[in-house]
Amino acid sequence: MKCQIVSIGDELLLGDTVNTNASWLGQVLAEHGVEVTQVHMISDNGLMIKQTLRRAMRESDLVITTGGLGPTHDDITKKTVAELFDVEMTIHEPTLKFIKKIFKQRNIPFSKSNYYQAEVPENCEVLFNKQGTAPGLWFEESDSRLAVLPGIPHEMKGLIETEVLPKIDALTDGITRRFAFHIKMAGVGESTLSDEIIGSLHDFLSDDLTVAYLPSPQANTLRINVQAKSEQEAMDKTRELKKYIYARADDMIIGEGKDMTLSEATGNILRENKLNISVAESCTGGLLANTITDTPGSSDYMMGGIVAYANSIKTEQLKVSEKDLKEYGAVSKQVALQMARGVATVMNSDIGVSTTGIAGPGGGTDEKPVGTVWIGFWSTNHHFALHIQLTKDRNINKQRTVAITLEMVRRIASGVETMPYGLKPHFA
Amino acid sequence: MKCQIVSIGDELLLGDTVNTNASWLGQVLAEHGVEVTQVHMISDNGLMIKQTLRRAMRESDLVITTGGLGPTHDDITKKTVAELFDVEMTIHEPTLKFIKKIFKQRNIPFSKSNYYQAEVPENCEVLFNKQGTAPGLWFEESDSRLAVLPGIPHEMKGLIETEVLPKIDALTDGITRRFAFHIKMAGVGESTLSDEIIGSLHDFLSDDLTVAYLPSPQANTLRINVQAKSEQEAMDKTRELKKYIYARADDMIIGEGKDMTLSEATGNILRENKLNISVAESCTGGLLANTITDTPGSSDYMMGGIVAYANSIKTEQLKVSEKDLKEYGAVSKQVALQMARGVATVMNSDIGVSTTGIAGPGGGTDEKPVGTVWIGFWSTNHHFALHIQLTKDRNINKQRTVAITLEMVRRIASGVETMPYGLKPHFA
Repeated sequence: MKCQIVSIGDELLLGDTVNTNASWLGQVLAEHGVEVTQVHMISDNGLMIKQTLRRAMRESDLVITTGGLGPTHDDITKKTVAELFDVEMTIHEPTLKFIKKIFKQRNIPFSKSNYYQAEVPENCEVLFNKQGTAPGLWFEESDSRLAVLPGIPHEMKGLIETEVLPKIDALTDGITRRFAFHIKMAGVGESTLSDEIIGSLHDFLSDDLTVAYLPSPQANTLRINVQAKSEQEAMDKTRELKKYIYARADDMIIGEGKDMTLSEATGNILRENKLNISVAESCTGGLLANTITDTPGSSDYMMGGIVAYANSIKTEQLKVSEKDLKEYGAVSKQVALQMARGVATVMNSDIGVSTTGIAGPGGGTDEKPVGTVWIGFWSTNHHFALHIQLTKDRNINKQRTVAITLEMVRRIASGVETMPYGLKPHFA
Repeated sequence: MKCQIVSIGDELLLGDTVNTNASWLGQVLAEHGVEVTQVHMISDNGLMIKQTLRRAMRESDLVITTGGLGPTHDDITKKTVAELFDVEMTIHEPTLKFIKKIFKQRNIPFSKSNYYQAEVPENCEVLFNKQGTAPGLWFEESDSRLAVLPGIPHEMKGLIETEVLPKIDALTDGITRRFAFHIKMAGVGESTLSDEIIGSLHDFLSDDLTVAYLPSPQANTLRINVQAKSEQEAMDKTRELKKYIYARADDMIIGEGKDMTLSEATGNILRENKLNISVAESCTGGLLANTITDTPGSSDYMMGGIVAYANSIKTEQLKVSEKDLKEYGAVSKQVALQMARGVATVMNSDIGVSTTGIAGPGGGTDEKPVGTVWIGFWSTNHHFALHIQLTKDRNINKQRTVAITLEMVRRIASGVETMPYGLKPHFA
């Protein structure tokens, strides 16, 4: 099954928005046996939209558009599609009712442009959008299908998952398609992982079975692609390869599945071991607590955190010694160790972790340049700190510090003895 | 000057790579008066590349391709372009010399596939690539120009900046081009903003002067596009429109510029007024502190925060009354008010804010469904809470709560009397 994606919006061509929708669609569709042959990014221009859709529907079995369904006058996708098929617009009552409900709940007056959101071309099947005011539209015309979806990523993804994929699965049932398995690994660099830890996988691979490394700040993904007729066949074909990868990289594998995060993996281990945690953050400024609490159900093991940006918070709330703070500075092994113990004491948690560093862009010295970070760990059995030297980029430094901290916790709670990136623990 | 971008590579269609090259090009080209009318993402397929390039060159003044210039067998862009123009390949000696030097420096044997990297179609002008082994290619044929560039982002960007932009600037010198101004507004929905607050801008607009609303979780952007010969002329042409927008929406305008964030705008007002702030977070779980500290220099006004996930942290660290916690529940006006005052007291800050709510997906009740959130504010002059009803989505609920909290702080610190989204303050 061949598909073309049409991403609509001036903001895409001006570069104000990066087209992450297209790459997400490419991945998901490939997993459901659909080959994306082209992506078109075009402006909110009626003539251009019509030309592109007409050609794309002639050339492929499925066309998916995203964008241009908002309530403002520059959003013209819906009207243009009605013109393309030469049909009238009609009000979709369930959508109108739903939109009115949303506005009532949020105490916002219902305006004329919102009413327009409930209008749909009369030849479409409505894909009900539970997460927003723009319904998705599904058309079957000639030998092709057209899905018209909003550009807001979570609304588009919701409609793909609940409405569009079931239609695709029904159309591709029983044919050979592509399956993907994702193995996630943390605390290791991509090239170390591929060159040294896992090494050549040549003997396992073929045209039907390939692998790709996908790096990301929290965890590297090893994706296995396999051609098969069913999920069972796909699993059978990849069994030996997966066994080999686990034998080589067991300690750093945090879990499987495209959506598995380091936060979730660490949380699962804490929950299994009936451990709870609290965090004391300086340089990460709340990102560590936020990453932990992004995982639903994290209140099972997350007690809370203290963001100690000012030094007075470190001494008063976290009981860091004023003398040590003065002698060694806020970014030091001593302060990291005391922050970790302090937060665990104050919050009465099994584990306390801490971050203190120079996130940048300013604040560096010759001795402690931007990117210098100490991470602390405290539990009744362990008390140590890790030292890392990161980049000049504030956001990257915050993200990497959080990733290393979570992987440190995951490894200790799992009984793994090596630290992420082979870092050496420093003791008091 | 009209341009089409052709991004070549299977990895783009499979979604393994997000096409950040296209958005970067869109921004840079717009700033140099070039309008990107279409972006095509296509696979490493000779026929597809030729078809797409032929059409794009017919339709526009400039075509830029990225990708498919590597040494491996799946990279066929260069060979395909030679076929398109029906010319032979020839060795580019300076590139060959440069590649051999790189390999010698890195102690890598020079192989046949590397020799191929120095071959170029005989009708091209070579754009010398100082950062890699694939030279850029420049063609002028019929009435159009074609730039063939590598897909590796820093190589592509280097070639654009040193080789392609000077050619574009020479072509567009003194001609009318497009300028963009961004006005950012917070605490208001996109449709309320466009329909009620700002209303029709019809009298100001023309083919040369258009506006677009770009919604985002933190702040809506109103982008003004104007055709002009210089920045001064662009400013003159937009003066009346901007004056009108400011007159209509002054209270909700947080600043100008594409990169202005709500966090930065709020921080600037706090710094100007010599106010500092601390935050007590339950449902936002650290995202509020993290958003504030994402802004460099935020240590000027950010004291710190307490993430009070467990109820014991609320009573012990934030001095929330145990009785009220039991009587009204953690998600209540009383607890929000006490958390805000508590964190300001404990951290000795001018302003304390708090968030408590049911982020979801679980934990809702009939009386307090998922998405119920209370936000607290405390300063010596103000003590109140806002009540909002959000969605079923955990991440959206966290993000919206943070956006409303920051905008609430910005408005109070700016002396604005209305609250975001017209919310009514609830007092103790």
